Amino acid sequence: MEPHIVDDLSAFKLAFRRHAAGVAVVTGRTPDGTPVGFTVTSLASLAAVPPLATFNMARISTAWPAVEGTTHVLIHLLGARNRALADRLSGPHDERFAGDHWAPGPLDLPLLKDVPAWMIGRIVERLPVADNAVVVVQVEDGGLGPEDAALLYHERAYLIPGSPVPD
Amino acid sequence: MEPHIVDDLSAFKLAFRRHAAGVAVVTGRTPDGTPVGFTVTSLASLAAVPPLATFNMARISTAWPAVEGTTHVLIHLLGARNRALADRLSGPHDERFAGDHWAPGPLDLPLLKDVPAWMIGRIVERLPVADNAVVVVQVEDGGLGPEDAALLYHERAYLIPGSPVPD
Repeated sequence: MEPHIVDDLSAFKLAFRRHAAGVAVVTGRTPDGTPVGFTVTSLASLAAVPPLATFNMARISTAWPAVEGTTHVLIHLLGARNRALADRLSGPHDERFAGDHWAPGPLDLPLLKDVPAWMIGRIVERLPVADNAVVVVQVEDGGLGPEDAALLYHERAYLIPGSPVPD
Repeated sequence: MEPHIVDDLSAFKLAFRRHAAGVAVVTGRTPDGTPVGFTVTSLASLAAVPPLATFNMARISTAWPAVEGTTHVLIHLLGARNRALADRLSGPHDERFAGDHWAPGPLDLPLLKDVPAWMIGRIVERLPVADNAVVVVQVEDGGLGPEDAALLYHERAYLIPGSPVPD
């Protein structure tokens, strides 16, 4: 039927190139209080009762010690107006919290300003898989900012949602 | 700063309402060979080397025994032209495989026709969390169909990606 790829990495890359994902930023603090954060396209709902969500990360990332050593993180859902935040929180580490785009929020966690929504997540599972981890959080609380179009990442570009697909 | 919600379920629901996600379908077979499948908006990349991906599901779903009892699943990335597949694979169970929209594929797993991309995933982890599970697969192979706009789910509607968000 369809052309067969017969190469695991190509199959993975070519398939995910056709995938689109919402953009979020996870923030936390290392045990010594240093703010850390990173942009993710892997945020997903796991259940509503109790409210559970997942995100994926590399355990070789500089943010892993913070996620490994903390009880809570903040998860920010980005809108189109937050594109610069997505870039900043995936850019050089020493620039991620240089500026006034954040302030200490609940539990003293770094809260990004002007996002459409954020959630406080209590980490309930950290599943190591090879050099990576799946992190499961239970949402305990959150807040809302002004509404905005959702920020999407697709084919290495930032986009907003487009036309509805009819039945 | 932002209004505080102070209710875990509201925080979760209001935040995810602002999230957008790509749509995929996971298929497998129960130990007795019955095809099963379900639409997910939780498909996420975990790593490229080795190629790992995750999806989330309810363990009370009728597809869980198949995922629990099998070694491999097929993951299909849907395009705009596959909207009917997304509906069908999230609709009544006895209608999900009634029709010629699928055929036995690799490892005899149910392969949906005319999707932009599909991957064979070997299940490497099943993490139970409350009534749910995070499933981790290692991609072993895959195939491509004709290209198409990615199918997105956002605010309870199916959409395609829209305009780029400039710097």
